[in-house]
Amino acid sequence: MSLVVVGSVAYDAIETPHGKREHTLGGACTYISLSASYFTDVSIVAVVGDDFAQEDRDLLAKRKIDLRGLEQVPGKTFFWSGVYSPDMNDRETLQTDLNVFADFKPKLPDGYDERPYLLLGNIQPELQKDVYRQMKHLRFAGGDTMNFWIQSYREQLLEAIRNWDFLLINDSEARMLAGENNLRKAAQKILDMGPNTLVIKRGEYGAMLFRRDTLFIAPGYLLEEVFDPTGAGDCFAGGFVGYLAECGFDLRNGHIDAQDLYRAVIYGSVMGSFCCEQFSVDRFRQLTRQEIDQRFEEFRRFTSF
Amino acid sequence: MSLVVVGSVAYDAIETPHGKREHTLGGACTYISLSASYFTDVSIVAVVGDDFAQEDRDLLAKRKIDLRGLEQVPGKTFFWSGVYSPDMNDRETLQTDLNVFADFKPKLPDGYDERPYLLLGNIQPELQKDVYRQMKHLRFAGGDTMNFWIQSYREQLLEAIRNWDFLLINDSEARMLAGENNLRKAAQKILDMGPNTLVIKRGEYGAMLFRRDTLFIAPGYLLEEVFDPTGAGDCFAGGFVGYLAECGFDLRNGHIDAQDLYRAVIYGSVMGSFCCEQFSVDRFRQLTRQEIDQRFEEFRRFTSF
Repeated sequence: MSLVVVGSVAYDAIETPHGKREHTLGGACTYISLSASYFTDVSIVAVVGDDFAQEDRDLLAKRKIDLRGLEQVPGKTFFWSGVYSPDMNDRETLQTDLNVFADFKPKLPDGYDERPYLLLGNIQPELQKDVYRQMKHLRFAGGDTMNFWIQSYREQLLEAIRNWDFLLINDSEARMLAGENNLRKAAQKILDMGPNTLVIKRGEYGAMLFRRDTLFIAPGYLLEEVFDPTGAGDCFAGGFVGYLAECGFDLRNGHIDAQDLYRAVIYGSVMGSFCCEQFSVDRFRQLTRQEIDQRFEEFRRFTSF
Repeated sequence: MSLVVVGSVAYDAIETPHGKREHTLGGACTYISLSASYFTDVSIVAVVGDDFAQEDRDLLAKRKIDLRGLEQVPGKTFFWSGVYSPDMNDRETLQTDLNVFADFKPKLPDGYDERPYLLLGNIQPELQKDVYRQMKHLRFAGGDTMNFWIQSYREQLLEAIRNWDFLLINDSEARMLAGENNLRKAAQKILDMGPNTLVIKRGEYGAMLFRRDTLFIAPGYLLEEVFDPTGAGDCFAGGFVGYLAECGFDLRNGHIDAQDLYRAVIYGSVMGSFCCEQFSVDRFRQLTRQEIDQRFEEFRRFTSF
């Protein structure tokens, strides 16, 4: 079942305690779609500049990602650079150049509007609304956001998420959005804003899924080596929605099994953990579905009692 | 199966965003033994001053805790005061008066040395060693420590834990003890120091259990209201060892089931979560074993997939 992903494709400069990359493929849409591609057909909507390298396009194409919606325009691709703290739980943004992304207006190629799954990466809420409106046969749709939109575009964001099935954010964003420090209470407030499913990502500490009648909590996978956490949250999102698309999960018609949602959280965690094992998107050059399923089973072993 | 608990019995002054208490029962030994008393017979070894109130003694006695090892001497009981940050993830110690605890020399009353389970609270490593040496028929023994002993009494601490079956510490202490930031690697180094079982507590994020052949990870229980986190880690320890004592867990003779250890981690988490629901030890005035088992099952529901 096909998934449409909308968001940024970027070049990153990253420094972690393990080393440095000056110019490497990044962006939420990139990570989400690479991750989701292990579970389902993925079609992306994004924009890049004329500096976008053929090898990066090839990496996405090799994962059978539909690139008709990857618009290429004159100018430079979105650029982000950041440096991580020694324990990698914090990072400082050194530079953000929106470049061609500043004028990004998502355009859906023919057939995209028929796809049943939609994941709206962290972009301007008005753009998220615009894409959402064009989709005709959604089964499960939602997205991500960030502190900037929560603080400075609150009304637009609230309008955007009102119709979403799911919202996927991290714990500090959830607290900010709800204006409530306790996560259990914050989650109830956010469910009142529209989404029937809320996933709160907690980085190395795992993730939680909230619905009116359901709570699921997963600890983080414990890696031997965290090489580069960039994109881990996006890979979580890609694994979460990708797995549900693979299941044919159909929330709008009520054919849902809560266990599918729980397993989707675990697949999300698995994909986030693989992402951290190498710099940038490198882990996805070799990763296999078999490794993913093995880690899923490992997760079951070390959390069952 | 009987458990001996050694550590501090104290009076605390606590301020959290929910309120303030000027003078309330506290101390690691207090929390550990109250928590463990729901699972097993508990005998404590501690010291208090002549200001120790009868009602506090009664609270412990009501939980059938053997108080023959609670020495009362002239002077004032150990006093600690602290204030919590708004999100309660940090706290600042305002005052620590060791008082009679400064000269604490644990003395085991008749019969204590026959008990099979031993939990050494966070005290001077030499005192921990001294008590450990006196025990004759241990099945499972270990304890807690803190940054102060790790930094300033490292050699004594390493000698103390060498023979322990388990060490129970928090994540920053584990990193400090191992000199390693990655918890998976840190755990392996600590297992090389002696203990065959390492439990790392992560506060609201849960806990992890490491053995050479085993890894178990539990997320934290998500409370609607965290009233006062004081003692939660000690209540975790009490639930963990208390449950194993209830099972008759016998590591020294090899009669062990890893699933018992996993369930002990969950019971520890459950007891830590109850501790936070009210100020000081207040939750233990009403808590029942039935509520504990219900929360254990709730834990299973929200972590199974």
